Amino acid sequence: MKYYTQFENKQLADTLIQKALEYKENPLLDKTLGQGKRIGLLFLNPSLRTRISTQIAASNLGMEAIVLNMDKESWALEMEDGAIMNQGKVEHIKDAAGVLGSYFDILALRAFPSLTNKSEDSEDFILHQFIKHSGLPLISLESAIRHPLQSLADMVTIEELKSKPKPKVVLTWAPHIKAIPHAVANSFSEWAIGCGHEVTITHPEGYELDERFTKGATIEYDQEKALADADFVYVKNWSAFNEYGKILRTDESWMLTEQKLLKAPNAKVMHCLPVRRNVELSDEILDSPRSLVQHQANNRIYAAQAAISEILR
Amino acid sequence: MKYYTQFENKQLADTLIQKALEYKENPLLDKTLGQGKRIGLLFLNPSLRTRISTQIAASNLGMEAIVLNMDKESWALEMEDGAIMNQGKVEHIKDAAGVLGSYFDILALRAFPSLTNKSEDSEDFILHQFIKHSGLPLISLESAIRHPLQSLADMVTIEELKSKPKPKVVLTWAPHIKAIPHAVANSFSEWAIGCGHEVTITHPEGYELDERFTKGATIEYDQEKALADADFVYVKNWSAFNEYGKILRTDESWMLTEQKLLKAPNAKVMHCLPVRRNVELSDEILDSPRSLVQHQANNRIYAAQAAISEILR
Amino acid sequence: MKYYTQFENKQLADTLIQKALEYKENPLLDKTLGQGKRIGLLFLNPSLRTRISTQIAASNLGMEAIVLNMDKESWALEMEDGAIMNQGKVEHIKDAAGVLGSYFDILALRAFPSLTNKSEDSEDFILHQFIKHSGLPLISLESAIRHPLQSLADMVTIEELKSKPKPKVVLTWAPHIKAIPHAVANSFSEWAIGCGHEVTITHPEGYELDERFTKGATIEYDQEKALADADFVYVKNWSAFNEYGKILRTDESWMLTEQKLLKAPNAKVMHCLPVRRNVELSDEILDSPRSLVQHQANNRIYAAQAAISEILR
Repeated sequence: MKYYTQFENKQLADTLIQKALEYKENPLLDKTLGQGKRIGLLFLNPSLRTRISTQIAASNLGMEAIVLNMDKESWALEMEDGAIMNQGKVEHIKDAAGVLGSYFDILALRAFPSLTNKSEDSEDFILHQFIKHSGLPLISLESAIRHPLQSLADMVTIEELKSKPKPKVVLTWAPHIKAIPHAVANSFSEWAIGCGHEVTITHPEGYELDERFTKGATIEYDQEKALADADFVYVKNWSAFNEYGKILRTDESWMLTEQKLLKAPNAKVMHCLPVRRNVELSDEILDSPRSLVQHQANNRIYAAQAAISEILR
Repeated sequence: MKYYTQFENKQLADTLIQKALEYKENPLLDKTLGQGKRIGLLFLNPSLRTRISTQIAASNLGMEAIVLNMDKESWALEMEDGAIMNQGKVEHIKDAAGVLGSYFDILALRAFPSLTNKSEDSEDFILHQFIKHSGLPLISLESAIRHPLQSLADMVTIEELKSKPKPKVVLTWAPHIKAIPHAVANSFSEWAIGCGHEVTITHPEGYELDERFTKGATIEYDQEKALADADFVYVKNWSAFNEYGKILRTDESWMLTEQKLLKAPNAKVMHCLPVRRNVELSDEILDSPRSLVQHQANNRIYAAQAAISEILR
Repeated sequence: MKYYTQFENKQLADTLIQKALEYKENPLLDKTLGQGKRIGLLFLNPSLRTRISTQIAASNLGMEAIVLNMDKESWALEMEDGAIMNQGKVEHIKDAAGVLGSYFDILALRAFPSLTNKSEDSEDFILHQFIKHSGLPLISLESAIRHPLQSLADMVTIEELKSKPKPKVVLTWAPHIKAIPHAVANSFSEWAIGCGHEVTITHPEGYELDERFTKGATIEYDQEKALADADFVYVKNWSAFNEYGKILRTDESWMLTEQKLLKAPNAKVMHCLPVRRNVELSDEILDSPRSLVQHQANNRIYAAQAAISEILR
C-alpha cells in the first residue's frame, strides 16, 4: 500500500479494521515496526484529534513524527503549475513537496478545500500535487474530498458496537453557520457502503453529495423516515455540492434531538468532532449514552496506527 | 496526587522541594519512571520557560511530551455549558477535553484569565472545565489564579539560598503598562506563607490581592518600610482585584531600584520573568548579583519534574 | 568549535564537507554522539528546510531537538540594552537568552534582519545578543548577514558534482518582488571563495554586496559575460546594500532562463529555496536536469549534522 487517501476495497478495509482493533488491545504490538523511519505531518489547516492521534500512532510504532504547520510556520504555497510567482505566494508546491519528500519516509497531509473551485477540489488537486512532487507514500489527514482516517475510525467503532451483521447506518445532514467541506460526509458514505452496511443518507433538497461517494446508499429527503430503526446515526453538516460551497438555507429544524430518535430507540449517534453543540446536535444527545463521539475520537489513534503500519509493511 | 494546581500543605511542599533538589543534582535519577506514558502540554496562551522546562522535565523522566498550542493550532473553544454554538467558537471544552483525556496519561494546561469576569476567573473556571471533562491528572501551567510550578521553583530557590530558617520574604507590587493577572502573586504568597516564611506584601492602596491567598502575610502600604531587612524581594505587577482587572494608576515610583534596597543590603531579588526592564525592575538590579531571576528560571525544570514524578508515583 | 555562524577557514570547511558526505552515506554513523544532549531550535522567522533538516540532523546524532517559534509561541523580544520596556516588547533578549542558555546544550537561531538598520544588521546584532547572553554554543540558522548551513550544504553539493578541481561558480542576482536580505548571497560568496572556487558575481549596478563577503570574487555587471562557461550558477535575489534594503528597479530581464545559458551548456543551476518561479528562475530550468535545488535541500540534513557534530566533539 503506497497511498492511504480513500476507500480501496472491502478486503483491505476489513484488514485495517482488524489491525486497528488489535492495536487498541495492545498499542505496542508493533513497537519497532517504524524504527528509524520518519513521518512528516503537514497541516495547511488546524487540527486537534487528527494531529495528536497520528503523532501517538507513529510513536506507538516506534517512528519519529515531525509536525509542520505549513500555514503558520513555513511559506505560503503556490499550487498552480506555470505560475509567475510575483504575488503573495512564496514557494511552489513542487519545490516544497520535493524537499519534504527527501526528508521523510512517509508524509501525511491535511489540506482543506477552498470551496471556491469545484473542479480543483473535486479532483483533490492539492493532495495530488503533494503525491506527485514528493514521490513518497502519503496518508490523507483530510483532503478536499475525503477524510479516510476518520472513516476508518468510524468503521472500527461500528464494528465494535454493532449488534447485527448489517446495521442500518444513517448519515443525516445537520445545520451549521459556516460553509463546511464535504470530506467527512463523502468518506463516511464511501466507507459505510463499501463495508457492506445498509446506508441511508438524508438531507434537505439541494444538499446532494457528489454521486461518486453515495452510490449504493438510499437517499431520503424525509429525515424522520430516514432515521426510523437506525442502528447508527452519523450527524454532519456539509455545504451544497451542486451549488458549490453554498449554504442554501439554515434549516434549524434539521438539528438532531432525542425527539427525532423516538423511532430509533437504540440508535447510537456519531460525529467526527469538532461539533457545534445545540446547532448540529443537542446537548441532550451528546451527553447521553447514545453518543459515540469520544469513542470515535479514541479510535482515531488505532485507525492511524493501522494505516501507517500497512504502509510500513 | 492527582492534581497539581495549588499549594496543598507544608509536608507535600517540603517533599516536592527536596525532590526538585535531588533532580537538580541528578536530572536522570528517575529516567524510566514515565516510560510509556504521555503528557499533553496544552497552551491557550504564549509561553517560553513554562513550555520548555516542562518538556525537559518530562523527557528527564522518560516520558513523551506533546505540545499543543490550542489557541493557534487547534479550534477556538466554547467554555459555557449549554451554549448554542452559532458564533465563532468551534469546539466545546467538554468535547476537546474529553478527547485529550483519552489520548494522554497526564495533561498540563496554561489558561490565563480574561480579567473581565471576576467570578469565573476566581473559581478557575477553565482549569476546572478541563479537569472535569478530561478525567485525567492535571498540572497547572498557570491558571486564572495560580501558577504553582513557578511558585514551587521559587520555593526551591529560597530553600537553596536562605541563610536563616525563616527568612523575611517581601512581595512588592511593581508598575506595568498592561493589566496583568494575579496568578503569580497569589501563588507566591500562598506558597511562601505555607512554607513558613515571614511574608510581607506591599503595594499601593487599591491593589489588595484576593484574601484567600494572603492570609498570614503582613500587608504594608509603605514600600520602604516593607523592604527593610528583607532577605528575598519578589517583584511582580498585578492589576487590581477589587476593581477587577483595572490599572488604577501608573505609580512609576514603585519600580524597584538599588536605592530602595539601602535598608536591605543582603536582599536577593526575584521575578518570574518575563520582566519589563526599567519599568518593573531596574537594569542595575537585574544585572547585579542580587538577581535570582535566572536561577529561578532554571529551577523550573526541576520543579516541573518533581510535580510530574509525584503524579506518576 | 563553539559557534557555527560563518566561514572560518578552508581546513575546517573541508573537514565539514567530508563529514557531511560521510553522514550522507551513513546517517546513523554517530548515532549516540549527542545522547543526553538537547538543542534548542529558535525561530524568529518562518522556516521549512532549515527547521526540519536540523531536527533530523539532531535526531540522527541521538540528540533531542526542541523547536520554539519565538515569534509566535513566546514573547515579543526587546533587543536594545537599557531600554525602558514600556511598549509592545514583553521580554528582553538578555533574559530570554539567559534562560534558554540554562535549558539547552546548544542553541540554533534564525533571525532575519529588519533591513531598516544597516549598522545593526551589519554587525549581526541579534545573533550576537543571543551568543552573549545565552553563554552556549550557537549555530546560525540564518542571521542578518549569513546563512552558513545553507552554504555548507551548497559546498557539499558542488564537491559532489564538480568535474574539475576549481570550477567556475557564478552568483547571479535575480529579480524579486520584495526586499530580500543579503544573508544567502553573502554566505555563498564567502564560502565559495574560501573553498577555492573561481567565483564571479553578477548583478545590476547598485546591487553591490558588502565587500567583506566578496573579496576575491570577480564582479561583472554584464550577466551574459559572467555566465559564460559557468560550471555552477547560483541564482539569488538580494536588496541593495549601499542604499540599504531598497529595491532599485525590477530588472525582469535578469531572470535566469535557458536562453542565458547558451554559452554555459554544462552549467548546473543552484538556488537555496524558496524560489519565486518565473520571477527569479524559469520553470524550464527548475524542472530540468540542470537544477540542483532538490539536491541542495537534501544536503541540508548532512550539513547540519556535520556542524552539530563538530560542536559536540
